[in-house]
Amino acid sequence: MISVDEATRQVLATARPIPTETVPLLDAVGRVLHEPLSADRDFPPFNRVAMDGIALNFNSIESKQVAFPIAATQLAGMLPQALADPQAAVEIMTGAVLPPGTDTVVRYEDLEFHEASGQRVATVLVPPPAAGHNVHHQATDRQQGDLLLPAGVRLGPAEIAVAATIGAAVLRVGRPLRVAVVSTGDELVALTQTPLPHQIRRSNAYMVQAALREAGAESEAFHFNDDQAALRQGLPPLLAAFDALVLSGGVSKGQADFLPAMLRELGVTQIFHEVRQRPGKPFWFGEKAGGAVVFALPGNPVSTFVNFYQYVLPWLRTCQQPHALWPEVTALLAKNISFLPPMTYFLPVRLEASAYGHLLAHPQTIGGSGDLASLLQCDGFLRLPADQSEFKAGDAFPVVRFRG
Amino acid sequence: MISVDEATRQVLATARPIPTETVPLLDAVGRVLHEPLSADRDFPPFNRVAMDGIALNFNSIESKQVAFPIAATQLAGMLPQALADPQAAVEIMTGAVLPPGTDTVVRYEDLEFHEASGQRVATVLVPPPAAGHNVHHQATDRQQGDLLLPAGVRLGPAEIAVAATIGAAVLRVGRPLRVAVVSTGDELVALTQTPLPHQIRRSNAYMVQAALREAGAESEAFHFNDDQAALRQGLPPLLAAFDALVLSGGVSKGQADFLPAMLRELGVTQIFHEVRQRPGKPFWFGEKAGGAVVFALPGNPVSTFVNFYQYVLPWLRTCQQPHALWPEVTALLAKNISFLPPMTYFLPVRLEASAYGHLLAHPQTIGGSGDLASLLQCDGFLRLPADQSEFKAGDAFPVVRFRG
Repeated sequence: MISVDEATRQVLATARPIPTETVPLLDAVGRVLHEPLSADRDFPPFNRVAMDGIALNFNSIESKQVAFPIAATQLAGMLPQALADPQAAVEIMTGAVLPPGTDTVVRYEDLEFHEASGQRVATVLVPPPAAGHNVHHQATDRQQGDLLLPAGVRLGPAEIAVAATIGAAVLRVGRPLRVAVVSTGDELVALTQTPLPHQIRRSNAYMVQAALREAGAESEAFHFNDDQAALRQGLPPLLAAFDALVLSGGVSKGQADFLPAMLRELGVTQIFHEVRQRPGKPFWFGEKAGGAVVFALPGNPVSTFVNFYQYVLPWLRTCQQPHALWPEVTALLAKNISFLPPMTYFLPVRLEASAYGHLLAHPQTIGGSGDLASLLQCDGFLRLPADQSEFKAGDAFPVVRFRG
Repeated sequence: MISVDEATRQVLATARPIPTETVPLLDAVGRVLHEPLSADRDFPPFNRVAMDGIALNFNSIESKQVAFPIAATQLAGMLPQALADPQAAVEIMTGAVLPPGTDTVVRYEDLEFHEASGQRVATVLVPPPAAGHNVHHQATDRQQGDLLLPAGVRLGPAEIAVAATIGAAVLRVGRPLRVAVVSTGDELVALTQTPLPHQIRRSNAYMVQAALREAGAESEAFHFNDDQAALRQGLPPLLAAFDALVLSGGVSKGQADFLPAMLRELGVTQIFHEVRQRPGKPFWFGEKAGGAVVFALPGNPVSTFVNFYQYVLPWLRTCQQPHALWPEVTALLAKNISFLPPMTYFLPVRLEASAYGHLLAHPQTIGGSGDLASLLQCDGFLRLPADQSEFKAGDAFPVVRFRG
């Protein structure tokens, strides 16, 4: 049986490049960019006034001039008004082009205005310390041609705004991953059906589809009863059409757990079966050459959850951003825990942000790995390593979050 | 001028209940539930077999019996097979109903099987410690009628799965907030236009729309030149139709900054103007009775960003979940910082998860508050309080995140 680290490594090794598509700028939020974007102009594109006030020539400040007649007014978006008389000033607004003949801006807060023979005059109360004050000079942030966004970045609001600045109305991005969510089991009935006393409604498939939606992947759900003929016919089209299959149930030791054999028969190469972890041990993972990867997760809800966030989500991310680093988030265990078996233990925890910059992990009691409702009080799992059995309050361990 | 705390308090005080709508289960991911959901049956609904193996009567274990002929086999989803002979056993799979006449399950790992005169017989290698072993008893997790999900919770994958379990095919949720994003300024041209030398493309509106989309709100963008007549005509329908308006630009001291006066004229009550913070000081906030709240944010991109995440996002969240607590996340400052003015300083930072359960905040140099591209290297802002001027490496401060 392999370790969680080795299983994770083998899962991520199957991540594949995904096709791209071109979408309108705002539809690219949360997607991954597949083309580099460079500055089409300098940033700022001109000597940009950074404060509302007056633009003047610093020479006159150096020669102790304090009163400046206003020769013109220039708002942002107006053509620049050249200053002909170096003893005068242009009243000017943030975002405007610095007028030719001026080099410095004095803000309103450092000025007083009065009228003298019909002429508006500004008196400088606090002289600017140097030429260029309150001017954001052309190209100081970025130069034309500079790379702004490399291919491979995730597009959040800042990236979308930068793309807008250079006029990128559409962007080439990775298309969402397509995942088939396959439930099996005669005991499972549809959401809208009233279960007989020995039946339950399907819920794992909804959990997986909800988690896929949060991860930006597209999914479709398929249900099969424990019927080998139906699976033998139904699975091949899914293996051909989807990037991944997530199966839940049918992979432990029971008589109806024929999925691993069936998958091998359908040309899915087994990469591993069973991982040294609790819960979620009977995880089967494989790949069809030229087709989907197959995550066959154990059927109990908590196991499905652990394995989705430990394996499926990182695989989706790695397909989208193969070169990104995903630094591990750690949290401090809030009380002592013992776990004797030599396996990685995924401890259900509620997370709390402390006032001292920590994340605290409070262990939660959940009633066996089948108690879905008890996950409602949890935010994730603390991943406690297999080579320890005593875990001390205050020690930091990696956290696998499913909330927040 | 009011403090950031007071401004935040006044903004959140205007949060209003929003109408509800009914959506299919999977469309409810990320939304807020507006009806309580209770268990329609016990959880589990029957004495549920928790391991693959055999079900037997613990009395026979107590009387030292070790070999059990298999009287029947029962998979999950099958009607329970009552055990007539208390010396025999039922071979049984996880998820099945515990057969009448049995009370205990022994898992395959603790058994050996052989055939004796055409009869399959299980030998118990490791006897179960007590009656009820490996049985998940009816109603141990939840009882019929128990509240599972109260109104007001955010629906993540665990909540969606619980809703599926009780057959909730549709859910009543809060509808998304509707926000009009209004840009003003003659210097701004459309994305698809080639700007003249003294013009720039609109980008703030895209940043705000992208951030709203990430927050689950719906938005529409509107642009006005610095033209009072157009605004006087254009704003009233927006104030009536949207939950909020986010304006960017037009609220500082410049001659073209007539928005505050215009908004008051249109019946928007000013709640405050200017906050003791940098950047983002000239923030104007108001509310129209029976209409939208108005966030008029200063126009430079970094100020817009700070104020969106400090004020607009918490307002959206509070409208959706008025009773939720939003514990503040803190991060440790990675190096000493001085900031003398008596204002709250939003320090741009890159965040790093340490191996010791901390979040570390690395200050980033950004070229004045107009340098949008420099936000690409940041994950958020550390909110440094107004009543301090020296901030020491290792101290924890609240972090306003816009990434991760």
